[in-house]
Amino acid sequence: MAPGEDARLEMNVSAIRNGTVIDHIDSAATFKVADILQVQDERHMVLVGVNLASSRLGKKGIIKIENRNLTPDEVNKIALIAPDATLNIISDFKVLEKARVKLPERIERIVKCINPRCITNQQSVETRFEVLQSSPCALRCHYCERVMIGDEIILK
Amino acid sequence: MAPGEDARLEMNVSAIRNGTVIDHIDSAATFKVADILQVQDERHMVLVGVNLASSRLGKKGIIKIENRNLTPDEVNKIALIAPDATLNIISDFKVLEKARVKLPERIERIVKCINPRCITNQQSVETRFEVLQSSPCALRCHYCERVMIGDEIILK
Repeated sequence: MAPGEDARLEMNVSAIRNGTVIDHIDSAATFKVADILQVQDERHMVLVGVNLASSRLGKKGIIKIENRNLTPDEVNKIALIAPDATLNIISDFKVLEKARVKLPERIERIVKCINPRCITNQQSVETRFEVLQSSPCALRCHYCERVMIGDEIILK
Repeated sequence: MAPGEDARLEMNVSAIRNGTVIDHIDSAATFKVADILQVQDERHMVLVGVNLASSRLGKKGIIKIENRNLTPDEVNKIALIAPDATLNIISDFKVLEKARVKLPERIERIVKCINPRCITNQQSVETRFEVLQSSPCALRCHYCERVMIGDEIILK
């Protein structure tokens, strides 16, 4: 940009040709989602926007990642911290598929149990939780039955 | 966005009416600059883009922050990790002022000396460095004369 130039001319940076757009992220969770997806290590274009106007959420965040599809574990992690997020698969600038993130009935591996006496924190046992509700998220540990809600949920 | 909708229609998210645009950031340093500016705590719009095409740098990062001006310390921190960055002050969508970040001759307070025996790591003495060169950045400690280059430079 040059002095006097209209900054709106720079708009082309905001569209991706192919990849994934995560929309309707709770603004406060947006950079956490970016961390989960380790976008700082991406070699393709990444766009992160926060505090954007949203009729549904008031303010929302959005993350666009070129040439990348998310894994099921990544989608579940996003659903845990941004239950209202939508996933858009983009192909040649068009929205090919759109879906709201949805927690499965069980969450395995990706969350740590906050009970220090839980067997999953004592021995080499993978964690496993039943999803009780999704927004705010509540999980019950399969082993010690400890219930964790919202901010108590710590991703591994 | 709805399935089939052209993702380019979403372009309006990339312009800010008033604020600061940090352009021509080395892509790898972009999220570090975002951390320095603690953009995750912003209440106004923030846009972060990485791996964008740049004729000058090959790939670049850009950060747009609505309704915010940077402090001199923030500008100096950016200059230390992204010496090619440019600052654009935006007013009513126009570029009011444009400048390349520039390190001053001396850097005070914002950098830690990596010499554990330096007096600044032993007593309550503010750090002070002479800037020897800017890209990659090289600093010499005023007290112990230790020279730090590039990645050795740790921000406080």
